[in-house]
Amino acid sequence: MIIVMQKGADQKDIDHIIKKVEEYGYRAHLSKGVERVIIGAIGDEKDKTKIENLINRPGVEKIVPILKNYKLASRDFHPDDSVFDVNGLKVGGNNFIVIAGPCSVESREQILESAAVVKEAGAVMLRGGAFKPRTSPYSFQGLEELGLKLLAEARERFGMPIVTEIMNPRDIELVAQYADILQVGTRNVQNFALLKELGRTKKPILLKRGMMSTIEEWLMSAEYIMSEGNQRVILCERGIRTFETASRNTMDISAIPILKDKTHLPVIVDPSHAVGHWKYVIPLARAAVAAGADGIMIEVHPSPENALSDGIQSLKPGRFAQLMEELPPYIKAAGKIMVTL
Amino acid sequence: MIIVMQKGADQKDIDHIIKKVEEYGYRAHLSKGVERVIIGAIGDEKDKTKIENLINRPGVEKIVPILKNYKLASRDFHPDDSVFDVNGLKVGGNNFIVIAGPCSVESREQILESAAVVKEAGAVMLRGGAFKPRTSPYSFQGLEELGLKLLAEARERFGMPIVTEIMNPRDIELVAQYADILQVGTRNVQNFALLKELGRTKKPILLKRGMMSTIEEWLMSAEYIMSEGNQRVILCERGIRTFETASRNTMDISAIPILKDKTHLPVIVDPSHAVGHWKYVIPLARAAVAAGADGIMIEVHPSPENALSDGIQSLKPGRFAQLMEELPPYIKAAGKIMVTL
Amino acid sequence: MIIVMQKGADQKDIDHIIKKVEEYGYRAHLSKGVERVIIGAIGDEKDKTKIENLINRPGVEKIVPILKNYKLASRDFHPDDSVFDVNGLKVGGNNFIVIAGPCSVESREQILESAAVVKEAGAVMLRGGAFKPRTSPYSFQGLEELGLKLLAEARERFGMPIVTEIMNPRDIELVAQYADILQVGTRNVQNFALLKELGRTKKPILLKRGMMSTIEEWLMSAEYIMSEGNQRVILCERGIRTFETASRNTMDISAIPILKDKTHLPVIVDPSHAVGHWKYVIPLARAAVAAGADGIMIEVHPSPENALSDGIQSLKPGRFAQLMEELPPYIKAAGKIMVTL
Amino acid sequence: MIIVMQKGADQKDIDHIIKKVEEYGYRAHLSKGVERVIIGAIGDEKDKTKIENLINRPGVEKIVPILKNYKLASRDFHPDDSVFDVNGLKVGGNNFIVIAGPCSVESREQILESAAVVKEAGAVMLRGGAFKPRTSPYSFQGLEELGLKLLAEARERFGMPIVTEIMNPRDIELVAQYADILQVGTRNVQNFALLKELGRTKKPILLKRGMMSTIEEWLMSAEYIMSEGNQRVILCERGIRTFETASRNTMDISAIPILKDKTHLPVIVDPSHAVGHWKYVIPLARAAVAAGADGIMIEVHPSPENALSDGIQSLKPGRFAQLMEELPPYIKAAGKIMVTL
Repeated sequence: MIIVMQKGADQKDIDHIIKKVEEYGYRAHLSKGVERVIIGAIGDEKDKTKIENLINRPGVEKIVPILKNYKLASRDFHPDDSVFDVNGLKVGGNNFIVIAGPCSVESREQILESAAVVKEAGAVMLRGGAFKPRTSPYSFQGLEELGLKLLAEARERFGMPIVTEIMNPRDIELVAQYADILQVGTRNVQNFALLKELGRTKKPILLKRGMMSTIEEWLMSAEYIMSEGNQRVILCERGIRTFETASRNTMDISAIPILKDKTHLPVIVDPSHAVGHWKYVIPLARAAVAAGADGIMIEVHPSPENALSDGIQSLKPGRFAQLMEELPPYIKAAGKIMVTL
Repeated sequence: MIIVMQKGADQKDIDHIIKKVEEYGYRAHLSKGVERVIIGAIGDEKDKTKIENLINRPGVEKIVPILKNYKLASRDFHPDDSVFDVNGLKVGGNNFIVIAGPCSVESREQILESAAVVKEAGAVMLRGGAFKPRTSPYSFQGLEELGLKLLAEARERFGMPIVTEIMNPRDIELVAQYADILQVGTRNVQNFALLKELGRTKKPILLKRGMMSTIEEWLMSAEYIMSEGNQRVILCERGIRTFETASRNTMDISAIPILKDKTHLPVIVDPSHAVGHWKYVIPLARAAVAAGADGIMIEVHPSPENALSDGIQSLKPGRFAQLMEELPPYIKAAGKIMVTL
Repeated sequence: MIIVMQKGADQKDIDHIIKKVEEYGYRAHLSKGVERVIIGAIGDEKDKTKIENLINRPGVEKIVPILKNYKLASRDFHPDDSVFDVNGLKVGGNNFIVIAGPCSVESREQILESAAVVKEAGAVMLRGGAFKPRTSPYSFQGLEELGLKLLAEARERFGMPIVTEIMNPRDIELVAQYADILQVGTRNVQNFALLKELGRTKKPILLKRGMMSTIEEWLMSAEYIMSEGNQRVILCERGIRTFETASRNTMDISAIPILKDKTHLPVIVDPSHAVGHWKYVIPLARAAVAAGADGIMIEVHPSPENALSDGIQSLKPGRFAQLMEELPPYIKAAGKIMVTL
Repeated sequence: MIIVMQKGADQKDIDHIIKKVEEYGYRAHLSKGVERVIIGAIGDEKDKTKIENLINRPGVEKIVPILKNYKLASRDFHPDDSVFDVNGLKVGGNNFIVIAGPCSVESREQILESAAVVKEAGAVMLRGGAFKPRTSPYSFQGLEELGLKLLAEARERFGMPIVTEIMNPRDIELVAQYADILQVGTRNVQNFALLKELGRTKKPILLKRGMMSTIEEWLMSAEYIMSEGNQRVILCERGIRTFETASRNTMDISAIPILKDKTHLPVIVDPSHAVGHWKYVIPLARAAVAAGADGIMIEVHPSPENALSDGIQSLKPGRFAQLMEELPPYIKAAGKIMVTL
């Protein structure tokens, strides 16, 4: 931590800060500039709140943090890419995975048909929501346990691991019984109660970026899960909220190389939620590959015009097949290998 | 819902949309413009997802929603201000309430001293966190049940209702045993599992705005609580996330008159979290009054330089007393009456 | 400037940075932390680009600036409030000014009637656009020189200084012939060519905040004008662009106390452009006063439903009179005195 | 335009609006919903301000625009891609161009060396700033005319068209004498005085996106240039301002497919300014190709650690050569052809 004193701060105030810094178990390091005095507080930062509170003392202008706040998620801590196994499929490293399926599980027929078409086109995991976070309490909220059972049936039939969202800590046991990957949605990225409990499960977690999360905060949310013991976290960029209204969210493509630099965790991209319109999903999926993503998650619905949620951003089976045909040269150029069933 | 057809859409596509609209139980209303055809879908909007999905049909350019998505929270539905009772104190209407206290309950001495000083200066409710949502898993997470007990002791001693945050649906029963108002924090504003369960309690809810919530989404979150039966919701503006870094968040002062126009629920303001620095809290609290707020919530700590969280934005007791001395002419000019114990 | 070295940076890299820092005329100050080495570069920052470029050297993790980038606009440099004279009226300090008038000058009758009603209600300066920045090239672009002449006629008749926008450096001479205050609009806040030329005029400048300017960037824009010799700059908060769509912009009320802390320049607020709807202008104008503003600028039109621009945010004369009746207790409570003609 | 009446609006208010709509030369189209009446105003929208102002009339809740505001830039108006010639090189369509060079022209040696290395690696146009928009008036402002002369010398020597920024309408004649493409920077995207004058030149314009511009506003800025007669506009995505601070701006990759859908103009991407750090430029350039861009503009400096501006985001020659080696398979997969000299 760096403590910047005000221009013309009293020697008495400076001495007081140095005394406090040392009292808190840090070494103080004084640096006299032309206009200002700067005091470095050197220590292991476990008590950094105390240093931060020095902002309230006379003569202090600002406090500048130096170190990162995440450890287990950091590439400093774990220099190689994390590669882990989900039902026998590799995630991370040079493996590229495609997860696809409808926004919500709506019926037995719909989910089985979805699984069939996405598998046929080359997807290796099936997504589908059983518990749906909807802005309005009057919108369709998901089939709940029935949806989970239908997903499990699709897994049996098509041999694809299933990814589904978990919203309530009370449902973890139930959902974990059926799902292979537990997804945390954008609205729950700082639902710390949920993250902590997920950290104590044995299931891999697909952690979507909050629409309002900085990359650093998102990594701190991963750290919540990891610090409880669960190291299998997959990060999923899905767009952030900005002033632009031409797309549903703004897909933060820069987050991919930045994350690859800062963390060892696998990073995938969900262009469907990011842009919010099926017309633009294919070029954005290609861009995700080119930027270095470890996979994509795509909304596909056998009949988007009848979908109970997010119909506008779902690809029809034919379009999804077209996407899967377009991807291979990009995946190859990016030095990845498409994971297959 | 308004369906805007593309320039030069085929008559066949137009006819198809009209047929679908009618099939979904709406009346279709055709309007031919100079360049485009527009189709109104007239009905009660409970099936509006179906209309929205028509975006996927050939010839459709966009779908424009017309009606609001919240009902119980809307002033259309309840034209007069909601005024309700919390332990004998009136909230809403022309009543102005001041809630104050530390960010976290840290010790018996700290919370009792906080309660004493804020009551002395004129606050009528005591805030303090027992379960703390912290960006880092390594930061202080709150005293949990011990914190709740200390808050309850402060209530007994000083006769002030207590406001504290609830993060996990599993903790509702526990927290409701001690608290008078249950607070939903900014990170949980779309934690729908939590909102629904809070809607089934009998306690008033203080619903903070999400740092990335639009006013409409925030009212939809209130609607989640209200649609389960609990009508006592207090909205608390606490700043939104923007590109500006000079303040912790951007306090959205316009939200106050806009909410007063759109909803009957009481609206209070938390300038401490909004701006994030004690130096700017007093003028912003005054501005909240002037804009028409029904109350303010202020962080006060007996010794901010020793606070375990948010020390930089907490007022010292003397500053809080100064704020309380400055407020009366603004409250009077705004046509409100300060609620007293 | 603070140079943070990477964890485990080589001694050779550290030595190289120190050598470079000294070569650039700075003193290097070494600070060894538990995990990282930090090097302070102490000097007068005129060559700070060179230090910033060290980011490209091996072993460097980041560079943290310490000093403010503005000088003449800074309160460090000029501790007292700037108070200056515009045609005999005081701006800044404890003086509160009200500027009002239509968005655009549309006709002789319209501007004279506007001047009459805003003067009658207590405004002391008249605003009106002759050159209009419009998002579309097909929208009304202003009456140009004719508009300036009509403004000048209104000044003669009503004795109010006039404020009007300047968009093109080529027009400065022309506009300065007629106007008393030259306004720089939000879209030109970083039109540095324009700012520099305005810095060489003798007219006070009303500098609107850019819809995407941080407070620091905005002060840097003021610095552009001041560094050319013109010290009479009035800052005008008019809302920033955020994700919220319920208001036209998000009025950054926190900017007022923050600016009052950081700069000596007068700060006024334009709630009309900030919120974008006449219904919400009065409470926001009151909030601006309560937050410590030195004035307000309000759009008033004798007949908003016939306005050629911004009709929706313009107050009718009666509403403006109501605002002027509501303000005095707030102005008094804020310790200001309303400037009168 | 669609006029939505308030719930329960009076018949008299509805009739009044219909009368007004007709008075303004539109046809009124009435649509009675379950809760609300909606009135379509059908006409050519040249007088749409009048319709918008009806918001001020009793009983009106909101006004919803239907049509796009740009015409010449719209794909509706010009369904095929615009392809045009710059000194014999094709821009647009399936042509992919690479523009590279330093942020600023700093010296004869620097710009000639830059030109040599970028040409060698495969770039076809040279960028370099002679007039620099800098946030601080105390930063390097460019070599001005000398810079232009050095650029022209580089063009003679290497046969590459040159791209340079224009900031002041007064400089157009001067800059147009030397440059092949005139660049409008992000801060001037709504400097309408400049845009109009550029619309009357014969030079192609490279129009950067404003850091605060929506895609629609950006297209309106292109429309300003085109409506004055100059149809050769190249759009350049360079990142927008958001809450994220890990990158300098947020590169809006979705803008590429959205623009390709809405306009016929060529779209290129500047990943250097978007992300602000050389480390992340290569993957983002690849992503731009994959998303369908018609070219990229890259900052390259022979010695970034000595750059007078933007050193941190400039590629060294070796890195740029690496980028140019990585691009071909992506360009091929995207169906484009790299333009060569």
